[in-house]
Amino acid sequence: MNLSSDPDRSGQPECSSRHGGGHKATSGVHFTVSVVLPAGGTGERTGLVTPKQFYMFLNRPLISYTIQAFERLSWIQHIVVVVAEESIALMTDIVQRFQHTKVRVVSGGATRHRSIFNGVQALDPGESAATPDVVIIHDAVRPFVEEDFLLEIAMAAKENGASGAIRPLVSTVIATTSEGYLDHSLERGKYRASEMPQGFLYCVIHQAYQKCSEFDFDFGTECLHLALQHTGTRAKLIEGPPTLWKVTYKRDLAAAESIIKETLCRSACLTSDGSKRARELGRCLQKLMASLDMELDVLPEPIGDASRLSKEWNFIKLFLNGSGLSEVEETVKALEAANRALLHPVVVVWVRLETSDGMSVSETGAGHLPLMELASAAKLQNILLYGIHFLLSEEDAGFSEGSVKRLAELTYTLIHDRNALLAGQILCA
Amino acid sequence: MNLSSDPDRSGQPECSSRHGGGHKATSGVHFTVSVVLPAGGTGERTGLVTPKQFYMFLNRPLISYTIQAFERLSWIQHIVVVVAEESIALMTDIVQRFQHTKVRVVSGGATRHRSIFNGVQALDPGESAATPDVVIIHDAVRPFVEEDFLLEIAMAAKENGASGAIRPLVSTVIATTSEGYLDHSLERGKYRASEMPQGFLYCVIHQAYQKCSEFDFDFGTECLHLALQHTGTRAKLIEGPPTLWKVTYKRDLAAAESIIKETLCRSACLTSDGSKRARELGRCLQKLMASLDMELDVLPEPIGDASRLSKEWNFIKLFLNGSGLSEVEETVKALEAANRALLHPVVVVWVRLETSDGMSVSETGAGHLPLMELASAAKLQNILLYGIHFLLSEEDAGFSEGSVKRLAELTYTLIHDRNALLAGQILCA
Repeated sequence: MNLSSDPDRSGQPECSSRHGGGHKATSGVHFTVSVVLPAGGTGERTGLVTPKQFYMFLNRPLISYTIQAFERLSWIQHIVVVVAEESIALMTDIVQRFQHTKVRVVSGGATRHRSIFNGVQALDPGESAATPDVVIIHDAVRPFVEEDFLLEIAMAAKENGASGAIRPLVSTVIATTSEGYLDHSLERGKYRASEMPQGFLYCVIHQAYQKCSEFDFDFGTECLHLALQHTGTRAKLIEGPPTLWKVTYKRDLAAAESIIKETLCRSACLTSDGSKRARELGRCLQKLMASLDMELDVLPEPIGDASRLSKEWNFIKLFLNGSGLSEVEETVKALEAANRALLHPVVVVWVRLETSDGMSVSETGAGHLPLMELASAAKLQNILLYGIHFLLSEEDAGFSEGSVKRLAELTYTLIHDRNALLAGQILCA
Repeated sequence: MNLSSDPDRSGQPECSSRHGGGHKATSGVHFTVSVVLPAGGTGERTGLVTPKQFYMFLNRPLISYTIQAFERLSWIQHIVVVVAEESIALMTDIVQRFQHTKVRVVSGGATRHRSIFNGVQALDPGESAATPDVVIIHDAVRPFVEEDFLLEIAMAAKENGASGAIRPLVSTVIATTSEGYLDHSLERGKYRASEMPQGFLYCVIHQAYQKCSEFDFDFGTECLHLALQHTGTRAKLIEGPPTLWKVTYKRDLAAAESIIKETLCRSACLTSDGSKRARELGRCLQKLMASLDMELDVLPEPIGDASRLSKEWNFIKLFLNGSGLSEVEETVKALEAANRALLHPVVVVWVRLETSDGMSVSETGAGHLPLMELASAAKLQNILLYGIHFLLSEEDAGFSEGSVKRLAELTYTLIHDRNALLAGQILCA
């Protein structure tokens, strides 16, 4: 049985007259947009005790990443997060801890649709002028949605009354007999998977829910279908990118973490003590890091950090002989003062070049305890500090390709993996 | 439009009379089973240059993991891997390098169905007595299929002529209008995603393909559907576990790697120098590792490794004061001699307990170069060797909980991550 319906077009709400008054959003989008994020899932499919939306990635719960995907957009006004009654305190704490400013937390209903309706209602302060023109509904466990796609969804919702993301089907869909045998298979090309986000004119989604039956509230799966059935609004479907995928299974946690880590290691800022060799090495590293897809901004002087603090997640500091640990400490303090590691751990790699030829390897261990202490304190602020010793023989006038490659790979793996357990260690390149 | 058909039951091949002669498989399964693995995909959905089946995980291509999932089962006879003409040399090399013994490589056709048919035909040596009773068709990019499920599929195929894995739908499936609007949504509970593996009586799949039209060969997606349409065989559908999932997108590579790594770090073997403190520490580590889901077999003497070589992927070696590096070297040599790291990298963690109170930290660096040299050589054999220094003050009669926990976490992260770039490093706990 298909849930197709013959929509009664006469039931379509007259949204344009109600909302044609012309709210202005802060940037480009000339109507107001708010978001409802249902986050009441229990995470049974991941096989984990913690529901997926609260699972921690690099010290931050997944839901905070999803909130951030919306909060950073100037044209998004409010984000209503709908959670189960028992998660309200936890969610409120997350909002405070990660300093989310556009979020209101409301408690959900017994089913997904009741929760979404609660969220939609929370956007209505009672005066129609203050309700948003468009509501985007998204899943708390799809953190990688991007601005351009959200914009498409919002625009299409404004124009058509409703819009939704679709993806090609990965598997053939089949119908089974009641005895568990193949009945028939669907022709893959004619069907699509319905995904999130979906967008609605406020009046469309509000009216769809007001007309909903108890059965719809309990067993309906698709907001798009409810909008069609109860308001006659036929949603515009837009093919989305693979990044819309929903964190569903345990394996998806590793996939999500890997995407977050990839994003954080696309660039770094390298400063050196200004010595000729350190600058030379900096340029070599820049080339090698580019081949690993990391863009390295090389700044000759130890200053310059300040201007970079606001954008980089990763810092490499090169020092010839002398320790340089005090400069590293300064960087860590500046990062702390700027609250730079609020949303993501920041990595600082301290590279010590040792050129003294006769030095025994055992001597290179000096300075290990101070780094470990500094790193332990920094870790509490979500700053991950690592050391690398790079030993050069005096004859080695240039740098041997192999040894610099090794240094680049070690630095890259420390920045990429962001392994807090290795903070404070000094590695040898 | 559904691809449902009204099967002509008179067309069903008389398999039982042909194969009733009673082949005996080597274990439990009283009929013969072979496998066809189509592996001709181009990997366009991962966005990578290398097709997914050849993507390397811990130094081994994905297809080799999938082959291993079948090859280790005594009741599987032959595995036909079907690859594109241009990948035959690569695939043959993989079979040799990882010493696969049940595999035949054949070249594929222009479409998935033509490739599978090539594979099915390759299982027929011309004399009917030698063809397998049952053929399992699986995807090269679903490496985590387990024996009990394969057994279910094979049994159901023997009994019903055809069988296939299904999974619940993750998304609502919708039909779109030609203009890209919602037409209708399907009731999720009535449909399933058709997955792999699928099983067939040899004669069923062979006849289905012989009766296939050119259209079926070019555009058909489902072997199950072809069997229904052309032989009247209605496949038994069996709900499979989430592990059947197909490596499809780039993010799935991280998920697959994480599953492989989890599997490899479930147990380890710990040997010590037999000293009282080392044995004590071993027992502490055993408890802590259990809380990290790693089962640690603690053996008091450095001997005992030999018996463990055949089953463990991970070795922890504890030595009080004196180096112990020669014992570590022996273990590495024994692992090499036993060819233990053929399929997976083996990890050896050398833990040096230092109890001398007055020793400066810098002295602990001694022995770093020899370890690095040993580790570099071992790495060529797929053996990853790491060092950890564990410093104890003499007063510390027991072990402080915090310091042993730190040692356990460091050891676990080295074993779990299997990061080849860190091989040869000495970390401080």
